[in-house]
Amino acid sequence: MFDRQELIKKLSIKTDSKIVLLVMDGVGGLPDETGGSALDRAHKPNLDNLAKKSELGLSIPVALGITPGSGPAHLSLFGYDPLKYDIGRGILEALGIDVNVEKRDLVARGNFATIEGNIVKDRRAGRPATEVTIKACEYLSKRIKSIKGVDIHFYPGKEHRFVLKLTGDGLDDRLTDADPQKEGSPIRYTEPLTKESERTAEIVNTLLDEIKETLKDYHPMNFALLRGFSKYPVLPQMQDVYKLAPAAIASYPMYRGLAKLVGMNVLKVGMTVKDEFDLLEKEFKNYDFFYIHIKKTDSYGEDGNIQNKVRVIEEVDAQIPRLLSLNPDVIVVTGDHSTPAVLKGHSWHPNPFLLYSKCGREDEGRAFNENECVKGTLGMFYAVDAMSLMMAYALKLKKYGA
Amino acid sequence: MFDRQELIKKLSIKTDSKIVLLVMDGVGGLPDETGGSALDRAHKPNLDNLAKKSELGLSIPVALGITPGSGPAHLSLFGYDPLKYDIGRGILEALGIDVNVEKRDLVARGNFATIEGNIVKDRRAGRPATEVTIKACEYLSKRIKSIKGVDIHFYPGKEHRFVLKLTGDGLDDRLTDADPQKEGSPIRYTEPLTKESERTAEIVNTLLDEIKETLKDYHPMNFALLRGFSKYPVLPQMQDVYKLAPAAIASYPMYRGLAKLVGMNVLKVGMTVKDEFDLLEKEFKNYDFFYIHIKKTDSYGEDGNIQNKVRVIEEVDAQIPRLLSLNPDVIVVTGDHSTPAVLKGHSWHPNPFLLYSKCGREDEGRAFNENECVKGTLGMFYAVDAMSLMMAYALKLKKYGA
Repeated sequence: MFDRQELIKKLSIKTDSKIVLLVMDGVGGLPDETGGSALDRAHKPNLDNLAKKSELGLSIPVALGITPGSGPAHLSLFGYDPLKYDIGRGILEALGIDVNVEKRDLVARGNFATIEGNIVKDRRAGRPATEVTIKACEYLSKRIKSIKGVDIHFYPGKEHRFVLKLTGDGLDDRLTDADPQKEGSPIRYTEPLTKESERTAEIVNTLLDEIKETLKDYHPMNFALLRGFSKYPVLPQMQDVYKLAPAAIASYPMYRGLAKLVGMNVLKVGMTVKDEFDLLEKEFKNYDFFYIHIKKTDSYGEDGNIQNKVRVIEEVDAQIPRLLSLNPDVIVVTGDHSTPAVLKGHSWHPNPFLLYSKCGREDEGRAFNENECVKGTLGMFYAVDAMSLMMAYALKLKKYGA
Repeated sequence: MFDRQELIKKLSIKTDSKIVLLVMDGVGGLPDETGGSALDRAHKPNLDNLAKKSELGLSIPVALGITPGSGPAHLSLFGYDPLKYDIGRGILEALGIDVNVEKRDLVARGNFATIEGNIVKDRRAGRPATEVTIKACEYLSKRIKSIKGVDIHFYPGKEHRFVLKLTGDGLDDRLTDADPQKEGSPIRYTEPLTKESERTAEIVNTLLDEIKETLKDYHPMNFALLRGFSKYPVLPQMQDVYKLAPAAIASYPMYRGLAKLVGMNVLKVGMTVKDEFDLLEKEFKNYDFFYIHIKKTDSYGEDGNIQNKVRVIEEVDAQIPRLLSLNPDVIVVTGDHSTPAVLKGHSWHPNPFLLYSKCGREDEGRAFNENECVKGTLGMFYAVDAMSLMMAYALKLKKYGA
């Protein structure tokens, strides 16, 4: 089968040209009853002016009709086939709360839960406050340190959530979830899916018994459910595939983690949009590929708050002149997936995609929004091809064949 | 390799939302010398009004430049890769006239024909009335009951057509057609395409000799041509893949057969467009997916009769308000393939595709025709993705990945 990255790896060359990939998470949307999507409504003279000088199109994150999570949606944008590289939920969760994961580690998502006897009464233990979960993780960490030579760590997440990390040799992630998924069902132990994961299953199940014993008087957080067991995935590194020196400017842990997975240098940055562009200016000379991640377009989409989504787009727009004054060779502005405020969640709708370069065709798209992108010269394409396009427009790909 | 149906099967969920897929067979076309395709010329205020509120696009039935038969074109629309599932015409014809086909059976399409000596004079035996063919099948059934332990059955179809069914162990469908295709040519025996089908070929050729002997005084139906040998194909069922309760409203045998193959409940319906919409109204509460098939747009395209094709489109248009008043969550109006009257046959041109839903983008397509569909937000896509789109817009797919 055609493997894009194998091909690109053969054709890619190191040059001085610079690429900026600006991802406004979930920026694409739908019109609501008052008319217009967030991109339609935002006052964004700089982005629209850039759109006039750019080629536009629409990118399909994974496949038509498929709504992606942030993991597959971002992998796709970085040129990784999101159906080939299926990153476990445990690892995404761990990356999301800045847990340092190494090759020997096994991680899982955890929920504190309430049980009676062996029956799961509440899968979220009454949704404790995050501070309560921090305490429970400390309590467990003091009492359960290792099992059969494997080190055990608990990291608190939001509310009832935590991340479990096991560190040791020969750990295997081919395990079923230790989570009945339904309340009123008995607790469930993990089962090995292969011979090689039997020992890991045994360790995890011993751990579950120890957690149960340790938390027996810690009502309502008297048990833990574990799912999404995953090892650190080995992905081709962007330096090898694209011959790039890539940097990530992202405030939120999960995106920092994803960037790290593909080999980017993850830079330390503050939480505001302006912080991110300040850092871009400062580091511009040091790398030739920048991934800038804007989180809040997605967050407000998920909240159903179109006004605030509009405001974030306008905030980004105000930084565009600073980006342009750095004079990158290629600028892409797009989303990883759409997050229409009317749906209050991710959706399958293709992403508006803007590609500015010195060697683009002129098209009839006059603004950066869903409808104008329909008119673009880039047409509708799979997001997994976005990196090939960026590389091509930056003149970083040799000819294929003679 | 990426198998759409494997992915959709993992993501699909049962919900209350309802989908209507209205297929106007061969509806796409080409302008003729007087200007405009059938869709351009038809007065269809309801479809055009629906187009204004819908997302438009163009779907490629199989691959660019490939003209499909009805089998692959429909499989594609139902989400089945038409290059992976190659359904023999024999099976389609058999299912279409309600012949019960089991796993051991081998079926073929038959024509009663007129021969002189060994030369085929009329491949359709003067197009006998259906009642005449019913009698001929009875006549044969009484005289030919089995060959070498294999049971033989003849089932009358329309006019000169019939279906042959062989029941026995080890039957194989890798056989060439026993049909010279041209009048004036000698009759042709079937040939085995593999070692394993040699015995079946022998049985079929003995049968041909017996038919010739039995019908020798049955002029003009004094021989039979056989083609499209096929065993019952095992296809994933729509209920499993999509978690749908699907129903088919189709008057013509082949389409009823196709629908049955993929697991649809094939409803009993009259022959007119109005009959089909009457039935939709009556059964709307009982299913959550409806496939409605309109045959005559294709038939008149094949006849080169653009005026009548226009008339059928207008007839369908008149029923659209009834469809809308049922308030389905997703409506798709499209063709399976194009049938331009100027070509008097199926063609490779992409199908106009209209998708109405509550969560669509607004696009600039203002009418349901070939050119307006170019402006649509759905762009150009493979028809095999149409089901994923319908499922997504009906909110019947979970998110992929975290």
